[in-house]
Amino acid sequence: MAELDLTRWSDGIGAADPDARDAARARQDMLAKPTGALGRLEEVSVWLAGVTGRCPPPPIRTPALAIFAGDHGVAAAAGTSAYPSEVTAQMVATLAAGGAAATVLARSLGVRVRVVDVSVDVDWPASGLAVPGEVTARRVRRGSGPIDRADAMSRAESAAALRLGADVADELVDDGADLLIAGDMGIGNTTPAAALVGLLAEVEPAQVVGRGTGIDDLAWMRKTAAVRDAMRRARPVRGDPVGLLATCAGPDLAAITGFLLQAAVRRTPVLLDGVVACACALVAHRIAFRSSQWWLAAHRSTEPAATAALSRLGLVPLLDLGMRLGEGSGALLALPLVTAAGDLLREMATFDSAGVADRPGAGLDRRDGLG
Amino acid sequence: MAELDLTRWSDGIGAADPDARDAARARQDMLAKPTGALGRLEEVSVWLAGVTGRCPPPPIRTPALAIFAGDHGVAAAAGTSAYPSEVTAQMVATLAAGGAAATVLARSLGVRVRVVDVSVDVDWPASGLAVPGEVTARRVRRGSGPIDRADAMSRAESAAALRLGADVADELVDDGADLLIAGDMGIGNTTPAAALVGLLAEVEPAQVVGRGTGIDDLAWMRKTAAVRDAMRRARPVRGDPVGLLATCAGPDLAAITGFLLQAAVRRTPVLLDGVVACACALVAHRIAFRSSQWWLAAHRSTEPAATAALSRLGLVPLLDLGMRLGEGSGALLALPLVTAAGDLLREMATFDSAGVADRPGAGLDRRDGLG
Repeated sequence: MAELDLTRWSDGIGAADPDARDAARARQDMLAKPTGALGRLEEVSVWLAGVTGRCPPPPIRTPALAIFAGDHGVAAAAGTSAYPSEVTAQMVATLAAGGAAATVLARSLGVRVRVVDVSVDVDWPASGLAVPGEVTARRVRRGSGPIDRADAMSRAESAAALRLGADVADELVDDGADLLIAGDMGIGNTTPAAALVGLLAEVEPAQVVGRGTGIDDLAWMRKTAAVRDAMRRARPVRGDPVGLLATCAGPDLAAITGFLLQAAVRRTPVLLDGVVACACALVAHRIAFRSSQWWLAAHRSTEPAATAALSRLGLVPLLDLGMRLGEGSGALLALPLVTAAGDLLREMATFDSAGVADRPGAGLDRRDGLG
Repeated sequence: MAELDLTRWSDGIGAADPDARDAARARQDMLAKPTGALGRLEEVSVWLAGVTGRCPPPPIRTPALAIFAGDHGVAAAAGTSAYPSEVTAQMVATLAAGGAAATVLARSLGVRVRVVDVSVDVDWPASGLAVPGEVTARRVRRGSGPIDRADAMSRAESAAALRLGADVADELVDDGADLLIAGDMGIGNTTPAAALVGLLAEVEPAQVVGRGTGIDDLAWMRKTAAVRDAMRRARPVRGDPVGLLATCAGPDLAAITGFLLQAAVRRTPVLLDGVVACACALVAHRIAFRSSQWWLAAHRSTEPAATAALSRLGLVPLLDLGMRLGEGSGALLALPLVTAAGDLLREMATFDSAGVADRPGAGLDRRDGLG
């Protein structure tokens, strides 16, 4: 397989539309409300205008969530998770059956869900788990190496996983998706996420390692040691994204990275959520610095690496609900707020149209537009 | 008019259902996710179970927003607002026409809206503004006294406004509303709100006075002086809710207070939002201490009095979006999160039903529930 050409992203990702952003800012100041009174929703509306290239932005009609599932050898090898790796496959089946948090939320909100087994460590037929073939058909490899002592995967697998994530983004956009969310599912996946953030945001292991699914103090110490070792192993390839993902991440994280990049190529907005996607966003941003213009931080995970990554990216999350579930669940919860921000910019009356006096002395006489 | 009997509220408001709350807590721990991973949504689901008396709680199907409009003499007399009082009537017309922020959001979210002119200082026929009769039919009085130097209204008017708010809550619940939001609209209404919070949360004027619609430093000083004077005038009636509202609030705030109390009598959940409603909630809580069990704080207004009031009530808002618009807009934005919290508790698979191993050693064999 030919080496992946990263210029498809570094050169292919453009800036969001500055004129639409300016127009949105100007329109916000004309709406029938005090300047700035909509707080962060005003910024969100400006972002929406930029990424859709229109002011006011069109409604978001067909958002889609892709959940990338994978297992992590480090979980069993170093004991970094509260759950056994078997849970990944079981949760993929629960996602496919619609009973996981993300699928419950997606159903309520009308969000299409695609679940992709990138690197789950299971023999599906032997497992007895009911999972559709479209979920399982594209696996890059089964599980990943224990990153504290060996590479997660080969460079070729890293490139293939990046391509897989990009393909999923392309397919969803080709299918009409007008907003994308990257979800994650995988026991142990916060360990490689912490390693990536530690390396790319230049933070010490103890500062990026959290409790994940709820580990105790001993497991936290094991996890921190594993992250330290993974960071040491990967430091030499810190500037080489394909190698970095191969050395200390995993196929699922590489796929999310490719997904985030290709969404930006396709000028499609992304709601960024979860420590895993935030770690991948750091990698993607290294590959193509304009990519972050296409992302809105949806929710602040309680995992410390998420905050470190977002802060490095200059993104401030909309929600802070103390969630730490992954699956894209925080982004799903932010979606109604993003929709609302667009609705307000599109549908609110302006001072002029409503005949409302803007400030003392302003037009009580401008009353003709009133319904 | 007979003096209002406050025992209808102090005795008539019961506690939320503790058994349903316990059941919700227990069910959260069975869902297919790490314990606590849904963060604040878990608390919200427990609250929903308590206020609906059912676990899992039924879906919220017919939420309703009542917006109470009134003018405040203190705005013109003491120059405490960035906008002239005429804007209140114009914004009532904009709300009625569907072009205000709250009506845009309510439309998107399927929330019924009732706008009530409690004390707008306008002659509607002469104004040329198009406002339906159902909005204007129940006014308690035209405007309110300048609270820095005179009472906002009489005791009889205060009682009438409390009754009006209660009647609106009753009508909406009788009409099928299963969740209520109190919105406000009125130039100058953050001034009485600050005075109420200053008195009831025992905070100095300079600590509760904010920028409202966006006043400059000089207006902020005038507003702080007005709040100080209103607090001094009202301190003797601090323990008498009807008198307190009459002395330093206004008919619209009294109506919101009655609305919040009657919602609790009717065992109907309320999303609390905005500095004005939060100030009224403090008064309502003095009348009936169990009332706050029926409220969920939706959004933290940037007005400092809102934070002081919520902190005194022991409520932590779900959202912090930097908004300061009133109209119930923050509560509307929180509604999808509240709905989502109920959906998750109701629809997520349990570890058992999904056959997911809860913790190391737990049931890989419990696989029979899988779809």
